[in-house]
Amino acid sequence: MFLVDPAEFDLARVDPAATPVGPLAKRAAAEAMTSIGEQLDQLQEILFAEGLGGGRRRVLLVLQGMDTSGKGGTIRHVAGLVNPQGLRIASFKKPTEEESRHDFLWRIRREVPPPGYIGVFDRSHYEDVLVPRVEELVPESEWRDRYRRINAFEHELAEQGVTIVKCFLHISPERQRERLIARLENPVKRWKYDPGDLAVRGKFSLYQAAYSDALRECSTAVAPWYAIPADRKWYRNWAVAQVLLEALRDLAPVYPRPTYDPRVELAKIKERDPLR
Amino acid sequence: MFLVDPAEFDLARVDPAATPVGPLAKRAAAEAMTSIGEQLDQLQEILFAEGLGGGRRRVLLVLQGMDTSGKGGTIRHVAGLVNPQGLRIASFKKPTEEESRHDFLWRIRREVPPPGYIGVFDRSHYEDVLVPRVEELVPESEWRDRYRRINAFEHELAEQGVTIVKCFLHISPERQRERLIARLENPVKRWKYDPGDLAVRGKFSLYQAAYSDALRECSTAVAPWYAIPADRKWYRNWAVAQVLLEALRDLAPVYPRPTYDPRVELAKIKERDPLR
Repeated sequence: MFLVDPAEFDLARVDPAATPVGPLAKRAAAEAMTSIGEQLDQLQEILFAEGLGGGRRRVLLVLQGMDTSGKGGTIRHVAGLVNPQGLRIASFKKPTEEESRHDFLWRIRREVPPPGYIGVFDRSHYEDVLVPRVEELVPESEWRDRYRRINAFEHELAEQGVTIVKCFLHISPERQRERLIARLENPVKRWKYDPGDLAVRGKFSLYQAAYSDALRECSTAVAPWYAIPADRKWYRNWAVAQVLLEALRDLAPVYPRPTYDPRVELAKIKERDPLR
Repeated sequence: MFLVDPAEFDLARVDPAATPVGPLAKRAAAEAMTSIGEQLDQLQEILFAEGLGGGRRRVLLVLQGMDTSGKGGTIRHVAGLVNPQGLRIASFKKPTEEESRHDFLWRIRREVPPPGYIGVFDRSHYEDVLVPRVEELVPESEWRDRYRRINAFEHELAEQGVTIVKCFLHISPERQRERLIARLENPVKRWKYDPGDLAVRGKFSLYQAAYSDALRECSTAVAPWYAIPADRKWYRNWAVAQVLLEALRDLAPVYPRPTYDPRVELAKIKERDPLR
């Protein structure tokens, strides 16, 4: 469910308010989240142990979406379900001067989670097929070529043991309007607002078209895109958590075999404990 | 409470099973943690906003303790109370070859949390006044000089806006024995055990003496040490959370002033919304 089929995907046909599977109301979602949280937490611990034991596998959750689509809220409510010790969260803002001097994947590579970790990208390399296209910063041949380079990069990550899960948080322009107004009206939310947000909002449909293409062009077997209805926060959180849980279940991490003999070690501490 | 007084501190006089203030039982601690968690979460969000708004302040929680003292559990249960997006957790293991070629503070500096963040160090630069001393890897003049360099380093961090809180998780050798046995007997805990742990345990009292000196020599006004009774997990979690909460309260982060006029922006979106 939510999976982007590269053969026929069209974002315009996805309803941001849909609840096609799973809980139908906030309370049911909260119950489901408790159960998902316990499972995620346990699987993450095993993955972490596997990584310490020399395993190379890890997970990368990529979050994209328009302003106010809830990337931050998803991190709080979904990534917040697991032990923070096993998380690596990276936020990608407007590239710095140094970052701009490098290939667009340079800053991304530096933040790929190490083995055993769940990495979360708050925005990502996908910004580089969205902003430059809509703002006409690079020629079409250039941003189109980036689809290919992104697919090659993600394929390379997959070969290194990275399970990639990409979630597009899909909100309607009406819901964005409400949330922008809420940010402005509530003094403790004003820090989340940037005057530039309105200019981007003015290009909502151009961004939707850019997202639609990017999701279709870059939804691959090793790095699928999921289009998550995000008008309802509780549904968005449940859906991303569920997608992440399924990825971890498929990965099926395993505790490493001890490099020592537990019986020998137990005998040592029980029979020859130097402190007794 | 728990504060290490450099004039008279002696670790041998701290009871690892004490509950000198706060909750006296697990259930009361759980209730207190809920309240602390809400406060920590809110203060962290304000600190994060302050950092985005150009503020330089941040918090660094340093955790030290013998094996099984609960550094990992503290991260799970205390750092887990706040939004993971505002956390930076760094674990310092045995230095790598590259790290060993540099000054002992080199790898530490790289992990200092950026403005707006709460950083957590799982072990730290204090390892370098403990292990080399007990294992006799460097002459006494060298590890003694490191106290001075650590104090200078932490003073420098404080001047850059880092609120430093250092917690030593103090467990008894008996409780360590129980926990090591539990790690060996429980197959899903075996990954936490390393055969080298027993050799370190054999030097328990040497490490206690080294900790006692390090805490006394490096508990300063800008970077105090707290000696946390850690034989009871619920008490240890509560105590560290409480110390961290007090540090954030004293810091008293503030939302940044908007760089725009909210009324003007509200008028723009309400009256001239390009998408309506």
